[in-house]
Amino acid sequence: MPRYNQQVSLTLQIHRKAGPARRATLTLPHGVVETPVFMPVGTQGTVKAVPQQLLEELDVRILLGNTYHLYLRPGHEAIRRMGGLHRFMSWERPILTDSGGFQVFSLSELRKVSDEGVAFRSHIDGSPHFFSPEHSMDVQIALGSDIAMAFDECTEYPADRTRARKSLEMTLAWAQRSKRHFEAHQHEVPWQLEERSAFSAQRSEDELRERIEGQTPNLFGIVQGGMFADLRRESAERLVEMDFPGYAIGGLSVGEPRELTREMIATTLPLLPEDKPRYVMGVGYPDEIAEYARMGVDMMDCVLPTRAARHGLLFTSEGRLNIKNRQYAEDQGPADPACACLVCRRYSRAYLRHLMAAQEPLAAVLNTVHNLAFYLETMRKVREEVAGSQWPAASS
Amino acid sequence: MPRYNQQVSLTLQIHRKAGPARRATLTLPHGVVETPVFMPVGTQGTVKAVPQQLLEELDVRILLGNTYHLYLRPGHEAIRRMGGLHRFMSWERPILTDSGGFQVFSLSELRKVSDEGVAFRSHIDGSPHFFSPEHSMDVQIALGSDIAMAFDECTEYPADRTRARKSLEMTLAWAQRSKRHFEAHQHEVPWQLEERSAFSAQRSEDELRERIEGQTPNLFGIVQGGMFADLRRESAERLVEMDFPGYAIGGLSVGEPRELTREMIATTLPLLPEDKPRYVMGVGYPDEIAEYARMGVDMMDCVLPTRAARHGLLFTSEGRLNIKNRQYAEDQGPADPACACLVCRRYSRAYLRHLMAAQEPLAAVLNTVHNLAFYLETMRKVREEVAGSQWPAASS
Repeated sequence: MPRYNQQVSLTLQIHRKAGPARRATLTLPHGVVETPVFMPVGTQGTVKAVPQQLLEELDVRILLGNTYHLYLRPGHEAIRRMGGLHRFMSWERPILTDSGGFQVFSLSELRKVSDEGVAFRSHIDGSPHFFSPEHSMDVQIALGSDIAMAFDECTEYPADRTRARKSLEMTLAWAQRSKRHFEAHQHEVPWQLEERSAFSAQRSEDELRERIEGQTPNLFGIVQGGMFADLRRESAERLVEMDFPGYAIGGLSVGEPRELTREMIATTLPLLPEDKPRYVMGVGYPDEIAEYARMGVDMMDCVLPTRAARHGLLFTSEGRLNIKNRQYAEDQGPADPACACLVCRRYSRAYLRHLMAAQEPLAAVLNTVHNLAFYLETMRKVREEVAGSQWPAASS
Repeated sequence: MPRYNQQVSLTLQIHRKAGPARRATLTLPHGVVETPVFMPVGTQGTVKAVPQQLLEELDVRILLGNTYHLYLRPGHEAIRRMGGLHRFMSWERPILTDSGGFQVFSLSELRKVSDEGVAFRSHIDGSPHFFSPEHSMDVQIALGSDIAMAFDECTEYPADRTRARKSLEMTLAWAQRSKRHFEAHQHEVPWQLEERSAFSAQRSEDELRERIEGQTPNLFGIVQGGMFADLRRESAERLVEMDFPGYAIGGLSVGEPRELTREMIATTLPLLPEDKPRYVMGVGYPDEIAEYARMGVDMMDCVLPTRAARHGLLFTSEGRLNIKNRQYAEDQGPADPACACLVCRRYSRAYLRHLMAAQEPLAAVLNTVHNLAFYLETMRKVREEVAGSQWPAASS
């Protein structure tokens, strides 16, 4: 088999459909993910403030890592030398990396976009860098994620039709280049470099090694097209022709009204192959992720639960709760009476409020654990709902 | 039994002595502590950055809480209404509170000391407050710690003989007032207010209630005397005459050379009753706590392991390690190859360094867990050493 042919190292087993929604198992080199799934964001090789042990206790099955951040610090070559991102951060379950495109556009300074790629300066030290589709692939392969994303331009909002069309064309050209380069190099993943480490007695490394033997990362394409339904359709169709093992819908949740988000997702989903995973990037509030999952989305990620947690905003079955409010000063109930997470089982609202008021670092830990538990539980309920639906079981 | 008689709710069972050192079990209302013991500092109702669950995994048996901080925020009356500090912070094991004296002197602004007590302004909002021995007792009883400390003045270093003498006299007068007020009110502890909470299914509350039934906090006296051996002796002797259930040596580790610290401890210890717990406040480095334990000290506390951790300083069997150093950038070994803590079993030096470099909140969590594990293990080894010594077993 020539090296430049795409190797697909994932399977999507669809157990049941309920209208457009599907309950499935996504098998990736580093493990199994029940979908629809919410993926916590671990920007710099850590879900901010949460030890990996607690993520496992929460039954997090897949994390997102940010290529831009990890490229700048500690550097993808360093991570490659250390056996890849899984090993570096001691996370043996699946990881998805974004392409770096979104952060290059939103975080870096003095960026200059050309057809070739993006020149930019680091937000950390101002040093000059260049990201092309090829370079994004090299970085992601060095990180060794289970799912890599094609290098795209996230079209800003608002963008007029001319701008959205131009951005879309560039993203499609970059997708083609991403795919070509990825297929030529996807075997260079650092997993093969893994050796039993002296200090990992607790981990079943042999089992892991067997699981990833001969496997490679998988590259997903990204649909763009701004807020224009016909451009979204064209983007999806041309992307599907390129034949990726999975597809993402990008450029949403960038400031547009929620109805537009929903419309773009609804427009795009029917054009994506039913037997492949569908990922909507960067959404959303709990009711949104439930809604999109019911529309047929399999994967979502968002910084909202983790970022909001650090600011004291908790998501609960009773709605959003600003735990800093004085009204919780002596509230001995849990953050969410309907939640069985390790925070709600143990700590009161009064204590969580105190930690925020006293600017204690434990506030971020506990608030984040609760918000992630709430997001994961939201998706678990959708999975249960789909699995228990009256629709005929899918032929998988 | 009249209320103003001291009730003692602790026992010290000495299992073995090795010279002056002792291996004992200290039983307190909220549980059992194996001594010699190092007590992590949980200033504001939290050991900074570490979830209580991980403290339990580390087998932390007793925490220290800071009266000054908790008085200011969230307030001792609020904590009393919520059933005491144990319940507030969801920590069912023993807690020792300091008297607030040290922080009033070191943190507050515009303080004015008189025989009556100390007027000061809050370091948080500049509001005026007054701490007297009686008030310190009221606050500590409201917090409901297992061990409260007499209100003292921590003599600064250097202090001449006149100053040390004056400070010592005030501390002794305050000890007498502390004791009188404590004995009149120690039954007002908030534990009796505890009721089964709706969200605590995992906790064995009935068992806890039975354990604390009729028990009260215990008040320890504090030896001062600056760096003058004869003043230390006088302080100890006059304090012992007052008959406390345990004694602390305060005013050490305030800037003096280490030989002086050791000398003051060595001078004081023989004057403290052998059958009561002896506590040296605010020490020290790992080799110091081991040394003092071998000299016959039962209890110690210090912010060093937790504070140093947040600055990237790790204590290891190979010495101190500044994890921020570039040399660890790709070091895949654990922080301490001889350590079996949950951090050393799982994460590399390279990862810990990355977390510090990237200013990730997880750095504080993991570094603190390791440093505490190292301190606890240091004391465990001393206990083992004493228990396995060739000295005849103590008649307990």
